[in-house]
Amino acid sequence: MGIRVSDGEIARRRRGLEEGLGAEGLAGACLFAPHNVFYLSRFSFIATERPIALVWAFGRRPVLFVPLLEREHAGEACDVEVVTYPEYPDERHPMERLADLLRDLVLEGKKIGADSDGYGGGYGYRGPKLSEVIAAEVVLVKDILERMMAVKSPEEIELLRESAVWANLAHSLLQEYTRPGLTETEISARASLEASAAMFRALGPDYRPTRPGLPARAGFRGQVGPHSAVPHAITTNVRIKRGDVLVTGATADVGGYGAELERTMIVGRPTEKQRRYFELMLAAQDLAIAEIRPGRRCADVDRAVREFFAREGIEGHWRHHTGHALGIRMHEAPFLDIGDDTVIEPGMVFSVEPGIYIPGFAGFRHSDTVVVTGTGAERLTHYPRALADLVIE
Amino acid sequence: MGIRVSDGEIARRRRGLEEGLGAEGLAGACLFAPHNVFYLSRFSFIATERPIALVWAFGRRPVLFVPLLEREHAGEACDVEVVTYPEYPDERHPMERLADLLRDLVLEGKKIGADSDGYGGGYGYRGPKLSEVIAAEVVLVKDILERMMAVKSPEEIELLRESAVWANLAHSLLQEYTRPGLTETEISARASLEASAAMFRALGPDYRPTRPGLPARAGFRGQVGPHSAVPHAITTNVRIKRGDVLVTGATADVGGYGAELERTMIVGRPTEKQRRYFELMLAAQDLAIAEIRPGRRCADVDRAVREFFAREGIEGHWRHHTGHALGIRMHEAPFLDIGDDTVIEPGMVFSVEPGIYIPGFAGFRHSDTVVVTGTGAERLTHYPRALADLVIE
Repeated sequence: MGIRVSDGEIARRRRGLEEGLGAEGLAGACLFAPHNVFYLSRFSFIATERPIALVWAFGRRPVLFVPLLEREHAGEACDVEVVTYPEYPDERHPMERLADLLRDLVLEGKKIGADSDGYGGGYGYRGPKLSEVIAAEVVLVKDILERMMAVKSPEEIELLRESAVWANLAHSLLQEYTRPGLTETEISARASLEASAAMFRALGPDYRPTRPGLPARAGFRGQVGPHSAVPHAITTNVRIKRGDVLVTGATADVGGYGAELERTMIVGRPTEKQRRYFELMLAAQDLAIAEIRPGRRCADVDRAVREFFAREGIEGHWRHHTGHALGIRMHEAPFLDIGDDTVIEPGMVFSVEPGIYIPGFAGFRHSDTVVVTGTGAERLTHYPRALADLVIE
Repeated sequence: MGIRVSDGEIARRRRGLEEGLGAEGLAGACLFAPHNVFYLSRFSFIATERPIALVWAFGRRPVLFVPLLEREHAGEACDVEVVTYPEYPDERHPMERLADLLRDLVLEGKKIGADSDGYGGGYGYRGPKLSEVIAAEVVLVKDILERMMAVKSPEEIELLRESAVWANLAHSLLQEYTRPGLTETEISARASLEASAAMFRALGPDYRPTRPGLPARAGFRGQVGPHSAVPHAITTNVRIKRGDVLVTGATADVGGYGAELERTMIVGRPTEKQRRYFELMLAAQDLAIAEIRPGRRCADVDRAVREFFAREGIEGHWRHHTGHALGIRMHEAPFLDIGDDTVIEPGMVFSVEPGIYIPGFAGFRHSDTVVVTGTGAERLTHYPRALADLVIE
C-alpha cells in the first residue's frame, strides 16, 4: 500500500511525455494547470493570483517556477530545481521572469509544449500569453496529458484502492450516524472528522493530504428528501426525517487520488414507489458495470443505459451521463457518454453512476469507482449496494 | 443584516454592465466563469466538465444555459430564463447548442462581450472557442467585470460584515479548543462544525451556503510550529505542543461572500524571539492599515510595508505582498503590491496581512479584512490582535 506516487513513477511519466513530444520536434515543456504540475512533480499547492509553472528543457532536470512564498513548500516536490520570483504583479511581471528562465533553458526559438498559452488562473490575475513573452512556438499539449492520465498505472490504482478503503470508512460512519432529527451538517462533520482522524493515525506521519480540509469526507451535499432529486444540490441544513431519500457521497485523499463512492439511502421502511425507483437505479448500474470492458467504446456503455431508461419508460427522469473518468481530479476525460467514442482500455478508472431523478419526490443514484481489467470492470468501492443494507431504521 | 444580495442589486449590476458595454457597441454578453455567473445571477454551482453560461441580449431577460442536471437548481438564480442542453459531450456539442441560443437571441453578426473565448473549465472538458461556433465578434470583458467587482456596494459590505461575525465565532472556538496534545484536524473540525451549526440556527432556514462543506471554517492549514513559516502550507496532523507558533485562518460564507481573518497564536509563554517577531508583524499590519485611504495607490501601501521590513532589517523574512481584494472570491484584484497602481476607492475591500517568515523557526501573520471608507480603512474583522490575547495558556 502506498500513500503517494513514487519518484520512479514521476520519472517515468516525464520520460514518456518527453519521448512523445520530442518525437514531434518539441524541445521543452511549460505546464501551468495545478493538476498537470502535480502529475509531473507531486507538488500540490493552493492556486492563487500567482502563476506557478513546471518547466523543463528535455533531457534536463525540471524547474518548478514559483512565487517566493512557495519556496520552502516547493521543496516537497519530486526531483526538481526550484526557481522563485518575488511576487505577482510586482514591478516586473512574473511572466517576464518566466521568459528569462525559458531563455536560460535555451528554449528560445524552439517549440515548447504548454497546457495553455499562459497562466489561466482566476483570482484577479492578468498577464500576457506565453507566446507574447518569448520568441518560441507554443504547441498546446493539454489533450496529450489528458490521454496520459486516462490510463492509470498500477501505483495509481493502488492509491485509488486505498482511497476507496477510507471512503468506505467515512461512509460507514455516515450511515451509522444518520438518524431522523439530525441535520446533514452534523452527521457529515462527525463522520468526516472520525474517518480523517482514523486515516491520519493509520497511515502514519508520512501521510500528507494534498488539499486543505479533512482528507476523508462523507456527506449529503443537500440531497436530502425531495432535494435528493437535485443532482448537484448544495448543502442545506434541513433535518433528516422518516421517509426521506438521501443521496450521499464519500471520498478520501490518498496521495492526491480520490475514489468516488455515492449511495442512495432511505430513512424508515421504503414505500413501493421508492423501492421501484431504487431497484431500477440498481439495475441500470449493474448493466453499466457489465458493459465496461476493454475494446468497447465509452459511448456504448452510456447508450446501453439510455436504452434501459427508454425500455423502462423513465427517460423523463434522466439527468446526466453514466459516468466519468477520475484520478487526481474528481472528473476527468473520457466520459461514459453517448458523445465520447474513446475506446475503453485496461487501467482506465471510471465512476459508474446512472441516476433517476423525480422532481418534488426524490433522486436515486449510487456511484462506484471501477477499474478496467483485462476482461471487464472491477469495483474499487466495496460498500453495500442493496436496498436492505441502505435502509436507516 | 442580509444573507444574500437582493434582486435589485443583481438588476443594477446587469444594468451597469449593459450600459457600459452597450456604449461600446456591444449587443449582448456571454459569461462562463462561475464567479461572473454568480455575480450577475446569484446562481452558484459545482463546476464540472459541463459548460454553464449566463447569456443575454441587452434589453432582454438573461438566460442561464445549463446542463439538464442543473435544471431545477438553476431555478434558484435571480430573474433568468433557464435553457438546458442534455449533456457534455453528447452527440451534439453543448457549444453548438449555445450558438443556437445566441442566434435565437439575435446576436449573430453582433459584438458579444465574453469573459473568455469559450468555456475554460478543466475536468477533461474539450470544446471549440465561442468565436468558432458563431459568426460574431467576441470582445473580452473580463477586466471590466473585475473592476466592477472591486468596488463593493453597501449590500456587499453588509454581507462581508456578517461573514466576519461568523469567522470571529469560528476563530473564538478554535482558540478556545487549541491545547497542547491535540491535532489541528480535531480542533479545526470541532470549531468549524460548532460555528456552522450556530450560523445555520441563527440565520434561519432561508440561509443557504453557496459551496459544499461547512459554511464557517477555522483552522491552521498546516501552519503549526516550524511549519508556520510556510505561508501556504497544507494540513499535516502534527500534535500541537508548548512553544509552538500557530498561524490560523477563519472565514464564513454569507451569500457567497467571505471575509478573511487570520491570527498568529503562541502556545505557552512566548519567548523573547517570538515576542519580537510578533510585535514587528503587528507594527507592519498597523502601518499598512494606516496607509489605506482613498486616493492613494495600492502600490503605496505595499511600498510602505517593504520599507518597514528594510528599516527593521528583516527583508530576508519577507515572502509576499501586503494583501489582496476579496469578495466572492478569496483573492481578487486589485492587490496591495508594489506593482499595482490602482487608485484606492471607497468601497474597496482588502485583506491586510504582511507576514514574517523564518524557515525552521516560525511564521507570523495576522490577516484582517478592511473596507475603504471616505477617509481611511475600517476593520470588518474585530478579533483581538494583541499578543496577550493570543497566547494559549
